[in-house]
Amino acid sequence: MKGKILELLKKNKGDFVSGQKISEELNVSRTAIWKYMNQLKDEGYEIESVSRKGYRLILTPDVLTYDEIKDLLKTKRIGRDILYFNSIDSTNSKAKQLASDGKGEGTVIISEEQTKGRGRLGRNWVSPKGKGVWMSIIIRPDIQPIDASKITQVTAAAVSKSILELGIKNYIKWPNDIIINNKKVCGILTEMSGELNKINYIVIGIGINVNLDENEIPNDIKDIATSLKIESGKKVSRKQLVANIFNNFEELYEELLNKNEITHSIEICKENSAVLGKEIRVIFRNKEIRGKAVDLTDEGELLIENQEGKIQKIISGEVSIRGVNGYV
Amino acid sequence: MKGKILELLKKNKGDFVSGQKISEELNVSRTAIWKYMNQLKDEGYEIESVSRKGYRLILTPDVLTYDEIKDLLKTKRIGRDILYFNSIDSTNSKAKQLASDGKGEGTVIISEEQTKGRGRLGRNWVSPKGKGVWMSIIIRPDIQPIDASKITQVTAAAVSKSILELGIKNYIKWPNDIIINNKKVCGILTEMSGELNKINYIVIGIGINVNLDENEIPNDIKDIATSLKIESGKKVSRKQLVANIFNNFEELYEELLNKNEITHSIEICKENSAVLGKEIRVIFRNKEIRGKAVDLTDEGELLIENQEGKIQKIISGEVSIRGVNGYV
Repeated sequence: MKGKILELLKKNKGDFVSGQKISEELNVSRTAIWKYMNQLKDEGYEIESVSRKGYRLILTPDVLTYDEIKDLLKTKRIGRDILYFNSIDSTNSKAKQLASDGKGEGTVIISEEQTKGRGRLGRNWVSPKGKGVWMSIIIRPDIQPIDASKITQVTAAAVSKSILELGIKNYIKWPNDIIINNKKVCGILTEMSGELNKINYIVIGIGINVNLDENEIPNDIKDIATSLKIESGKKVSRKQLVANIFNNFEELYEELLNKNEITHSIEICKENSAVLGKEIRVIFRNKEIRGKAVDLTDEGELLIENQEGKIQKIISGEVSIRGVNGYV
Repeated sequence: MKGKILELLKKNKGDFVSGQKISEELNVSRTAIWKYMNQLKDEGYEIESVSRKGYRLILTPDVLTYDEIKDLLKTKRIGRDILYFNSIDSTNSKAKQLASDGKGEGTVIISEEQTKGRGRLGRNWVSPKGKGVWMSIIIRPDIQPIDASKITQVTAAAVSKSILELGIKNYIKWPNDIIINNKKVCGILTEMSGELNKINYIVIGIGINVNLDENEIPNDIKDIATSLKIESGKKVSRKQLVANIFNNFEELYEELLNKNEITHSIEICKENSAVLGKEIRVIFRNKEIRGKAVDLTDEGELLIENQEGKIQKIISGEVSIRGVNGYV
């Protein structure tokens, strides 16, 4: 009902809509309308109410609620059930909890702020209020745990393509970061729960530094982190970005579900790769591999050629690119 | 303190211990003693209290509390933190929840009864009160998700050895059942949570039909399920069985942690195997493989030789043994 009232206000943007009219069109009591208006105000909508004239929408806030995103969505499942939070400890933690309780595929947890945002391997992730996209998608694919890393490639492809659609060139630092000018703008944290040969659910955490200004990037990570706004010089629509991601993700994910392949995602990952053709170092469980990143396999593994020309295939790891950020 | 009072009563089994003495020895008030005695009575201990004589332990119940198991334990970590329930929906569900909240390695959830016990792939598991061992162990090994199936082999070996130590011959039906006379007495359900290349935790569910009588096995599974009591003709000490499992599991698990191998477990799995040398059928994700089970690898995978002499290696699946339970 709140969403319907909001739609009505938006349709009449700038003009007053009388309580009488809302009440009749939506078959809702005047008291209930008043209650919903207050909820909308709490979410950041500026609504003017004048007696005998009614209600008028003055300002739509930049919030990532379903009501604000839905008109931009082309998806069937992804992002059709959005749980929106003003502040939360971690969207991945919340998503895992909800997934355990049975929340279905495509459910998304979005928060304006994370107080305990997490990156890979339990690391901290700075997630200030209203400045980024901090969200987690719940999926329940019928695949093997060993194939779960494909989901990270699908997600990286979807996010990279979505940022590009906003006119901002970006690169995928295999396996799960998006970078611009060799600085991170997005991290992807894929977590799973399952039996040994059956996935119960996967939670895909996506953290994007969207509209953070220079002074909002902590000093100690200024060399390695940036935001879309800093790099493109303009404020980016978070709503459009989120909708793009859902649209692209669903399309690429369906290829995995329907054909059990991720060809289209791998194409995007290759086109936008930050590592292919570069000398890199990969740290994987305390072992180090050095060589040239030469290709991605159809499953999303990275092929590295060492000095002797031997090719190694790796499924995950911490990648450094030679010549960047102190690795010489 | 409750445990200390119980110890004192046990030490003086049959004789009265005065409230005065308990109070002095353990530095606890008479009121507190009275409270703890009531708790012990609630757990099933029969305690006689006679004024001016004190308290006397008449009967120790067959319960799987830490107080009852601890004297039999040789472990450092496994089973040193036991959460005991009279009734619970599922020990695995509870263990996963506690593990998410940070409960440490070796923590065990034991319940006298499960109201929603689960087997593999979401199947139901009958778990009547006081008749079995229904428990889940939380571990946090620093291994890859792909290596998690080793944990199932370690557990199968530990349980099989532990039952054998009670004088009952039993067989491991790879990968995760223990059978006697081709009927299941124990199922193991290993579940994990993690990132793509890092395990957060593994929960090992162990369900053993211990002292169920014939009439307590549901009719529709009488052909495929049995209990230790039915097969051995005698009541089995659940406490001793649980302690054996913890002791054996810790020893075998440490081999994995310290040497990254499970040689000792695989030896036990081979010795007690119900499938090696047999014609079997394995169903794995809707595919069927038929052939002779010829060996286990050092990692716990099953090698199957088909009619053309070709060897296939499988990491998991639903095994039927030819000639048993309708598979001809």
